[in-house]
Amino acid sequence: MSKERVCLIGSGNWGSAVGKIVSENILKHPDIFERQVRQWVFEEDFKGEKLTDVINREHENPKYLPGIKFADNLTAVPDLVDACEDATVLVFVLPHQFVRGVCDKLSGKIPSNAKAISLIKGLEIKPEGVTLFSEEIARLLGINVAALSGANIADEVAQEKFCETTIGCRSQADGELFFKLFNTDYFHVNVIRDYVGVELCGALKNVVAVGAGLSDGLGYGSNTKAAIIRLGLMEMRKFGQTFFGGVEDTTFFESCGVADLITTCSGGRNRKVAEAFVLTGKPIDELERELLNGQKLQGTLTAQEVHQFLAPRNMTSEFPLFETVYRIIYKGAPIDSIVKDI
Amino acid sequence: MSKERVCLIGSGNWGSAVGKIVSENILKHPDIFERQVRQWVFEEDFKGEKLTDVINREHENPKYLPGIKFADNLTAVPDLVDACEDATVLVFVLPHQFVRGVCDKLSGKIPSNAKAISLIKGLEIKPEGVTLFSEEIARLLGINVAALSGANIADEVAQEKFCETTIGCRSQADGELFFKLFNTDYFHVNVIRDYVGVELCGALKNVVAVGAGLSDGLGYGSNTKAAIIRLGLMEMRKFGQTFFGGVEDTTFFESCGVADLITTCSGGRNRKVAEAFVLTGKPIDELERELLNGQKLQGTLTAQEVHQFLAPRNMTSEFPLFETVYRIIYKGAPIDSIVKDI
Repeated sequence: MSKERVCLIGSGNWGSAVGKIVSENILKHPDIFERQVRQWVFEEDFKGEKLTDVINREHENPKYLPGIKFADNLTAVPDLVDACEDATVLVFVLPHQFVRGVCDKLSGKIPSNAKAISLIKGLEIKPEGVTLFSEEIARLLGINVAALSGANIADEVAQEKFCETTIGCRSQADGELFFKLFNTDYFHVNVIRDYVGVELCGALKNVVAVGAGLSDGLGYGSNTKAAIIRLGLMEMRKFGQTFFGGVEDTTFFESCGVADLITTCSGGRNRKVAEAFVLTGKPIDELERELLNGQKLQGTLTAQEVHQFLAPRNMTSEFPLFETVYRIIYKGAPIDSIVKDI
Repeated sequence: MSKERVCLIGSGNWGSAVGKIVSENILKHPDIFERQVRQWVFEEDFKGEKLTDVINREHENPKYLPGIKFADNLTAVPDLVDACEDATVLVFVLPHQFVRGVCDKLSGKIPSNAKAISLIKGLEIKPEGVTLFSEEIARLLGINVAALSGANIADEVAQEKFCETTIGCRSQADGELFFKLFNTDYFHVNVIRDYVGVELCGALKNVVAVGAGLSDGLGYGSNTKAAIIRLGLMEMRKFGQTFFGGVEDTTFFESCGVADLITTCSGGRNRKVAEAFVLTGKPIDELERELLNGQKLQGTLTAQEVHQFLAPRNMTSEFPLFETVYRIIYKGAPIDSIVKDI
């Protein structure tokens, strides 16, 4: 049986933390995986050198995850098609806006027995429908695609602080392979079948975190915040079960569900910017410039997209927390409607 | 149809917060409830006066919930049997060690059509079995008993900060009555049938909070803490479903489950003392003297009782988080086994 050749597509903070795990795990399973793992790295200058040269010499990505070493079997490759040549396992770990461009370049170049896993955060929600990036990659490349999500702040994972994650995968054989690729004694993997639920949680949690941040900004205390988190979890579940098949209740008990939601509502930029929205009275785009160097906040954007999806279906009232977050951020609704209207 | 006469048994911090809700709600439903609600108050001196006299004059319990007014239809009564005379609805909201003494005094004096609800925190776990206080009251008084629990820090409830709670009640008619007695626009009640799950959550959460505090003491960050909370929730569910009938998965999505667990693991004495256990290296009984005026910490005690219940059944390994908390606190196990052994 030929061995699996792994390629990581993406090399940011999370991609680098995953690079450490994957490169180390591959060495533990020489019967299953080719020793060498390639990582597609968008070429940049780093202190006068090419970033890929630095990574390949230092076994470290000093730009996005300084101080953390990969195993020496990881090779940074600046050309996407070269990086993926003959790969049988593709790990997508890059910002969602680059997914289609990457798949266009790889189209027709990936063997049909290859499998992929998406670590991409987010969904594409448009009035006409919701697109999961795992399904989009599957459609564009004609291969099976699983999803991974969990309470996984990248820096903590890279420091080998204990946590869990969830892999959603319909194929049992692929699930066992991905378990071997990702599971470590500090990064516990649970494999479930419900990849849809896994991906939905990763995007919708950010809307709930905005709600939690509004509550924090109002000084409402821990009963209220726990209630918002719980109601948010229930709306995440309802959204999944209303608009998708196969979304299981138990998925929301996994790391991708309740655990990631707790982490995101405790720290994280969505909570923080929403708190600042209350305390400063500034609009979100101004706070994005001040606090996020102009990057868009995910949770408010997702709340808007969810509204635009629900409104033509006359279903906004079925998701009062999601809708109230939208109305407070974009429609000037009173901030205390976060508890009065849910 | 004769009206319901309500008696509150207990007048501490939580009993007083509940006194405010119940006295106000009774006024909203004059067709269902007798106007007057009695509260059994253990008589104490308060600044040279009887506490019951102060409560009845000021409509406030200045000892246990200062600054919060009851409606004027609440009467403090120092004699237990007088307070409960002709009552058809008993609200038990007192420390669990007083339950049997109270029931002994009331035995034979409560009409069989009366119903009760237990807001008592905790369980009685002995090697031979687990006793729910709702069932103990039902047995001793021969009446139906429901249970109420949720993410309900008393002071925040009294300040009308939005939160939720869960009532577990097998009788639909009683459930509707308790909903009217407790639900307000800032205190949202969900009624479910699984009273066993409701009570189990209220006790077992404290063991998980000790685990979360150990993680905080070790400086492990939010991924790890979220994983401990999630694994704890799963062991709470497993404990319920292994040793009791009728414990539903969905109960753990209610306020009594995930929400109360989040609140307890964020603040609260169990988390705090466990953190101090790591940071100071002092034994728990010394910390109880220093931080709790000698009161016993609930979570460590429950961990010990759970161990003594599981050990003769050879099931400690099925509940690794509960067992690891026990071994760290009482058996000198290394503190980092909180992540290594679960």
